[in-house]
Order: sequence, then C-alpha cells, then structure tokens
Amino acid sequence: MSPDPIARLVALLARLPGLGDKSASRLVYFLLRGSPDYARELGRAIAELPDQVLRCGQCQDLGASDPCRICADPERDRTLLMVVEEPHDVRALERAQSFRGLYHVLHGTLSPLLGRGPEQLTLDALWRRLKKGEVKEVILALNPHVEGDATAVYLAEQLQGLPVKVSRLARGIPVGGDLEYLDSGSLNQAIRGRRQMGE
Amino acid sequence: MSPDPIARLVALLARLPGLGDKSASRLVYFLLRGSPDYARELGRAIAELPDQVLRCGQCQDLGASDPCRICADPERDRTLLMVVEEPHDVRALERAQSFRGLYHVLHGTLSPLLGRGPEQLTLDALWRRLKKGEVKEVILALNPHVEGDATAVYLAEQLQGLPVKVSRLARGIPVGGDLEYLDSGSLNQAIRGRRQMGE
Repeated sequence: MSPDPIARLVALLARLPGLGDKSASRLVYFLLRGSPDYARELGRAIAELPDQVLRCGQCQDLGASDPCRICADPERDRTLLMVVEEPHDVRALERAQSFRGLYHVLHGTLSPLLGRGPEQLTLDALWRRLKKGEVKEVILALNPHVEGDATAVYLAEQLQGLPVKVSRLARGIPVGGDLEYLDSGSLNQAIRGRRQMGE
Repeated sequence: MSPDPIARLVALLARLPGLGDKSASRLVYFLLRGSPDYARELGRAIAELPDQVLRCGQCQDLGASDPCRICADPERDRTLLMVVEEPHDVRALERAQSFRGLYHVLHGTLSPLLGRGPEQLTLDALWRRLKKGEVKEVILALNPHVEGDATAVYLAEQLQGLPVKVSRLARGIPVGGDLEYLDSGSLNQAIRGRRQMGE
C-alpha cells in the first residue's frame, strides 16, 4: 500500500480516459469533502464490477445475468435480430423504445488497420443463433463510420444464401455520429426507416 | 443491490463533478474492457479513502498521517508559515519545490454571500500555532479571487499586534487563476517575490 492514499488514488483515476492528474485530484478532494458513505458505495460498485457483470451466452451483451434480461424476455420478437457494435449501443436503442426484437453485440468492428479481423468479433455465436432458423431478419445497426460500414458490408456478404432478410438502419443517423449519443427520436426514425441491404 | 450493476455504477459515477450519464457510461465500459485487477484496485482505493485519509492536527492538511509528513519533517523551517485555502494548494506549492517552511490549510475562504464566516475556517488551530511563538512570518497564499483577497485582508487585520511579519505571494499569480493550475515556475516567482502585507 502506498504511504499517501490521496496520491495513490489520483494516479489510479488519471488512468481513466478523459481524466488527467488535475481533474483526478479534483475528484479525490470532491470525495473527501463529500459523504464517506458515497465514496464507500462508489468504490465497492467499481471493485465488484468485474465479478458482477456477465456476458450473455446468446446476444453477448454485458449485464447482470446470463441469459440477459432481453434474451430471457418471452415478449421479445425472436424473428428480428439487431446486430450492434457495443453494449452501450443496446442501451441507446432500448431507450428509443421502438425495437422489440433481440440483439447481437459484436464487441467491435472489422479494422484491417488495427488488425481486427472477423475472428475478434462474436461471429461464431451469431452464426450459431442464425442456424437455429428462428431469425427472419437481421438488422445491421452499426455506426456510420468507415469501419462500421465495412463490417456491415462483410456481414451482408456472409449472410447471403441464408434464408434471412438483411437490412440496415436508415440514414437518419448523421454520418460521423455515434449511436450512443443520438437522441431517441432520431433512433426511432432510423429503426422505422431501415432498408434492405443492397437497396 | 440493484439488479443491473452497470446502471447502478453509471448512476453513482454521474454524481461526480464534470461527469454526466454518457461519460459515466463510457467509463463503466472502459472498466469492463480493461483489466479486472485495475477495477478492483481503483474501487478499493475509493472505498478506503475516507478511512485512510487523516487531517493533520497541526496544519489541517489531509494525508496519510497525523502529524503529516511535512509537519513531522525536522528539516522544515518552523519560523515560516504559509496559509492556503485547500489541500490541493499544498500539493501545488510542494511541486514548485522552493518553500521549506510549514503550511496551514484553512479549508475554504470567507464568503459572506455563501454564509461562510471565520468560524468555518481552521482559524482556532492557526491562532494556537501562532501563540507558541515559533512562527516569525505568515505568508498568505490565498487565491487571487475576491474571496481569497477578502480572507487575506481579514487575516492580516487579525494578525496585527502579533510579533509576526505578514506577507502575501507576489502578483506573479495571474488574476483570476487558481494556484492549483499554475506552473511551478510562476509559483517559484510568486514565493520569491512575496511582499509585506500593506506594502
């Protein structure tokens, strides 16, 4: 244990994205001025995070249970499968409250430049789900970036020949934007205006 | 315990200053992608912070011990006492490495508007230290804001009649700036160019 608990925590916090030494130091003094119970609860929630969060064996989303709440919900439409890049995309789409199907989280995109190939995405799990024959439409809800587009084109090619319709979200999504930061209205439009792949 | 550990941590993190729901969510997924050991160490450091950090009974600074490392250091010049607003000001001045005296942390400034009077600062402890007669010079190192200036003027008045020289940091400090964000060079200049109060 470091002799100075303040310096130790500043150094740990400064490793978080978007935080430097000085903003980390501000946070530590904010915690010291505030309620000790808040600091204890926050600290415990962070420390327990890796053990409490499970990956759903079906959709590969992260959450409190496996299967996750959405995959286990009998009310969801199992013929619709929305493929997204990251777990936060699922949260954003759920906030829009217009999609009642299931999700599949790729945990990334293809990126030849960064050496990320198909084997680093959760494609095996995706093919396993599609082989069951329940899914009638795959909606590619990837971010409108070069890498998201490349991943969508790759997936559309791989899905050719399977008895599923392949669509992508309508270009109500502003190019260069992130799903996570879109307002629910735009997300609703994009879900409703989805187009058949290749159209 | 909330059923969703991710949503629970996002809500806790969003209470930190400068963090909203979306930046909190980014941090949670950063933690989930990273090493579980880092999340556990960070979480423990936050949870243990309130119990590990002590207030020094002499200078009132926050740190790992009471008396603190600086007050306990026999090499420090006990005739010089630098009065600062907050613990982070001590860190900034120590980084400048030109002051070898002791500190006194007020934990705030006077602010009639916010209802902060002298009784909410650590003034009793300050008078106790001065009564011992060891201190020959009090350096008022308050931030060059309205509240810092008002506090410096109040302290200078209260110190009249005591056998101590009262100085303040030279105006090498840019008006409107914060001690915490100053470069060490400017802090060195301000320490060296300090002027007698009233000059």
